[in-house]
Amino acid sequence: MIQHSHQTAPTQYVEAKGIRFAYRRFGKPGRVPLVFNMHFTGTMDHWDPAVTDGLAHDREVILFDNAGISSSSGEVPNTIEEMAANAQAFIRAIGITQVDVLGFSLGGFVAQELALAQPKLVRRLILLGTGPRGGEGMASLTRLRLDGRDPEVSEKVGPAQLEALTKWGTPQENPFDYSRAITQPTLVLNGDRDVIIYSVNSWILQQNLPNAQLIIYPDAGHGSQYQYPERFVQHASQFLSEQDTRALGRSQTPGSN
Amino acid sequence: MIQHSHQTAPTQYVEAKGIRFAYRRFGKPGRVPLVFNMHFTGTMDHWDPAVTDGLAHDREVILFDNAGISSSSGEVPNTIEEMAANAQAFIRAIGITQVDVLGFSLGGFVAQELALAQPKLVRRLILLGTGPRGGEGMASLTRLRLDGRDPEVSEKVGPAQLEALTKWGTPQENPFDYSRAITQPTLVLNGDRDVIIYSVNSWILQQNLPNAQLIIYPDAGHGSQYQYPERFVQHASQFLSEQDTRALGRSQTPGSN
Repeated sequence: MIQHSHQTAPTQYVEAKGIRFAYRRFGKPGRVPLVFNMHFTGTMDHWDPAVTDGLAHDREVILFDNAGISSSSGEVPNTIEEMAANAQAFIRAIGITQVDVLGFSLGGFVAQELALAQPKLVRRLILLGTGPRGGEGMASLTRLRLDGRDPEVSEKVGPAQLEALTKWGTPQENPFDYSRAITQPTLVLNGDRDVIIYSVNSWILQQNLPNAQLIIYPDAGHGSQYQYPERFVQHASQFLSEQDTRALGRSQTPGSN
Repeated sequence: MIQHSHQTAPTQYVEAKGIRFAYRRFGKPGRVPLVFNMHFTGTMDHWDPAVTDGLAHDREVILFDNAGISSSSGEVPNTIEEMAANAQAFIRAIGITQVDVLGFSLGGFVAQELALAQPKLVRRLILLGTGPRGGEGMASLTRLRLDGRDPEVSEKVGPAQLEALTKWGTPQENPFDYSRAITQPTLVLNGDRDVIIYSVNSWILQQNLPNAQLIIYPDAGHGSQYQYPERFVQHASQFLSEQDTRALGRSQTPGSN
């Protein structure tokens, strides 16, 4: 079997909910696969191979275009919850029963809603450059794949995603209550100078999620995982490979007093 | 040569500034050694072997009692700066010209002052359960070594350390300005529920240090490195083994726009 990479993985298609989802799947099989959720107006091609190939070294990674994005058919929904429902339909359609979910920026909102809606499907979360309901999101672009690129996103994508972002980001009473129901072990990661979704949102996320690690990189912005790709791959791999966060922790330090 | 461990390393002595410093040195030689700075009223024996032996696996670790503590002679100074000057004298006395410095709680204050005073001596910092000037510190105890234990600290230790803590923690104008001069790559790490030195101090530290990573562990308090010792050893080892933080980072993401 050919071991594909970010550059060579063929674009495949699967149908669910009347949507034809485009995706690419590569890396080492055996562990729980990691599904990537893209940022505002981004497509599969906007992931950085330093990160995807780095993580594919010891697990399968799955990139996909959610509904209405680029090579996938359907419409971009105007709520984050519907985007999460579409992501779920896609994951079920390719026959996966347990998944780790990585989300960057807008994709981090989708990842949170997916974890909330599907606690059994989603094992672990990696939330990059993102925030809780009440945070705000915009675009950041990273383009590296040159051959067989995804079509650019249509003009309908931006407005629908913006509407979804705005709804999700609207201030409300007790805005962080929802996050206490996200019980999956979570890694929250950002740069210390994110001016798209302010870095402090990562701190707020960590403080309100029941079981989250936080990692902040120095001198780094919204796409900090691309500024320190080797470091990030090591941190993310360590996190994904941990047996169980609660089990790892000592409930009480032996001999402490 | 016998490879010593936390349990077996003999207590050695070295003299500097008229002080006889007690210390233990063990682990794998070759890299920059890591010097541990203890918390309020703690001695060498209060370090957790899961952490010291874990880090000693691929580097030398050095535990010591600062002046006036337990097996070391001299008086406990009543300023953090003097404690740092004593730590520096100790490090020079054992012939080390470059060192990584780990500090826990009060030891984290000392580590910061040492890094400020000795930018060439100190290569990297690990700051655990600590904060910037303006933070506040207290005791947390972890006792595991049973044989050849350090004598308990004298009654003079607490008051002097408290005075030093208070001076260092006093609110002042632009309290975090000092930290911008700490240019060493730094790892700031804490639990998300530190009620001794509030966790948010770690966030503040990261935001004000020029080159700091922040890691926060879930469901963890002041001694989070003892709650997740394997995880911490992996994170600390990765940090200490990185070539150079600036070099690791991409100044600009290739192909980004």
